[in-house]
Amino acid sequence: MGKLLIVGTVAFDAIETPFGKTDKILGGAATFIGLAASQFNVRSAIVSVVGEDFPQEYLDLLSSKNIDISALQIIKGGKTFFWSGKYGNDLNTRDTLATELNVLADFVPIVPDNFKDADVVMLGNLHPNTQMSVINQMRERPKLIVLDTMNFWMDNALEELREVIGQVDIITINDEEARQLSNEYSLVNAAEKIQQMGPKFVVIKKGEHGALLFHGSQVFFAPALPLREVFDPTGAGDTFAGGLTGYLAESRNISFNNLKNAVIQGSNLASFCVEKFGTERMKDLEKKEINNRLLQFRELTQFDIELQ
Amino acid sequence: MGKLLIVGTVAFDAIETPFGKTDKILGGAATFIGLAASQFNVRSAIVSVVGEDFPQEYLDLLSSKNIDISALQIIKGGKTFFWSGKYGNDLNTRDTLATELNVLADFVPIVPDNFKDADVVMLGNLHPNTQMSVINQMRERPKLIVLDTMNFWMDNALEELREVIGQVDIITINDEEARQLSNEYSLVNAAEKIQQMGPKFVVIKKGEHGALLFHGSQVFFAPALPLREVFDPTGAGDTFAGGLTGYLAESRNISFNNLKNAVIQGSNLASFCVEKFGTERMKDLEKKEINNRLLQFRELTQFDIELQ
Repeated sequence: MGKLLIVGTVAFDAIETPFGKTDKILGGAATFIGLAASQFNVRSAIVSVVGEDFPQEYLDLLSSKNIDISALQIIKGGKTFFWSGKYGNDLNTRDTLATELNVLADFVPIVPDNFKDADVVMLGNLHPNTQMSVINQMRERPKLIVLDTMNFWMDNALEELREVIGQVDIITINDEEARQLSNEYSLVNAAEKIQQMGPKFVVIKKGEHGALLFHGSQVFFAPALPLREVFDPTGAGDTFAGGLTGYLAESRNISFNNLKNAVIQGSNLASFCVEKFGTERMKDLEKKEINNRLLQFRELTQFDIELQ
Repeated sequence: MGKLLIVGTVAFDAIETPFGKTDKILGGAATFIGLAASQFNVRSAIVSVVGEDFPQEYLDLLSSKNIDISALQIIKGGKTFFWSGKYGNDLNTRDTLATELNVLADFVPIVPDNFKDADVVMLGNLHPNTQMSVINQMRERPKLIVLDTMNFWMDNALEELREVIGQVDIITINDEEARQLSNEYSLVNAAEKIQQMGPKFVVIKKGEHGALLFHGSQVFFAPALPLREVFDPTGAGDTFAGGLTGYLAESRNISFNNLKNAVIQGSNLASFCVEKFGTERMKDLEKKEINNRLLQFRELTQFDIELQ
């Protein structure tokens, strides 16, 4: 069984979509990554921080998914990171209504001893220095380091970001971020330039339009499953990353062919995540549902043309 | 060998993209459809109209591709339909600079006797009444009728459009048009509603994001090939339709599995079309190039996950 170390936020989210509105609910990149990865046969741990206001119920949920939370720091008297956002009618745009860093402002990640030899490290979206600190704490170079990031760090900490990008095997970013980071409009060219920055694999997430995997001259495309209803896109990207890394930690095979499977697994899990608010769909998701939907992915994409 | 009847514009286009600018060059829906379909083992004919200003060279090009142009009316003293457009930097938006209907304004399509028994009829984007007139001239109900249309007719001739939609087997429209026609945001719901209007198959084109094929509860997705450079998107949708119908006329099999192949063929041919201005890439395209790129489509989409 592979070991997966996850660093990222554990948070409160308050979300408004055209279909409804939530109070503070469980959110955060590490939460979504962990829940998705828990669908695979892996030992995982979350390195993160919350405040004293973080409910025991949420901690219990993570533990019940076999996620080691001994390195999830609980700051006495502190308040948990809070994000609030409102989605537009097409769910493709969102406005951030509030970002309260709280305990995240002074977060110093501490990798637990028993995960310093993790096979896979998933660096969720955080300050690049925090991501780098996790890499530096590992006892040896993990088999695979995956990095997620966003345009905010390109705008505000590009040098530090470039440094950590130089240390990872896979980067996952969305199409606009790929264009910003590479200064190339074509995603083919963008992926090529980003590979030159370090990562051997570049995954470009296009939301409802699926995800592209690039490696040298090889390209693979995982569609998003066309859904009757998308309820709340929050956490879809992190769920994708959790499916990707969970599957790779389980299968311990980073060939391009297996990476194909990994992005399909990520896309598959993300298709569940968006069906309900926050983590609601993910917390009770069963393997049978996942496998059924993988069959749908097969139907959706597989064809058999005879070449003449 | 199947017979394919194509109705649509044959035109002059003047195009401006971020990469260059053309004078009047060969364009029109029927032109792109015919060139794409000519890659398959079919007998095809174009029903359309041009003016006396239409160069013999262009007529010769169509004839050289084994396209029957005896029903391409040449109006003495008339001027050929002219369209001029300018694409934005991302090639996803375009402004129409000029539309001169000219001989198209009084176009009455006449289906030639030897194509009144065509197996497949491809109704390119035109006034719905013109499309309906072609259906009505057929000796018997063709095995397959495919309709392309656009938002202009939804805005200006919805009743007539709904009537012809009720007569066809496959409709191809883009995502925004599907939403407008169905009044549904979700493409799954949109495709369901459009199927209730008549067509058994709904193909939703998403440009650089690929195309979706819907039939009952079945869905298939054909990605667009990620390209290093897209030079000119003009004609890509018509080329897609030409690949789709050309392949179906050749294979004479309208099972869902073969429809999958057909949309891949369409997407494959469209990926060539956008590489140069207008018809330039399509007119010398060779079967070998097409087959090589079909292998790329296979690499791009095929995976093999073992379910546990």
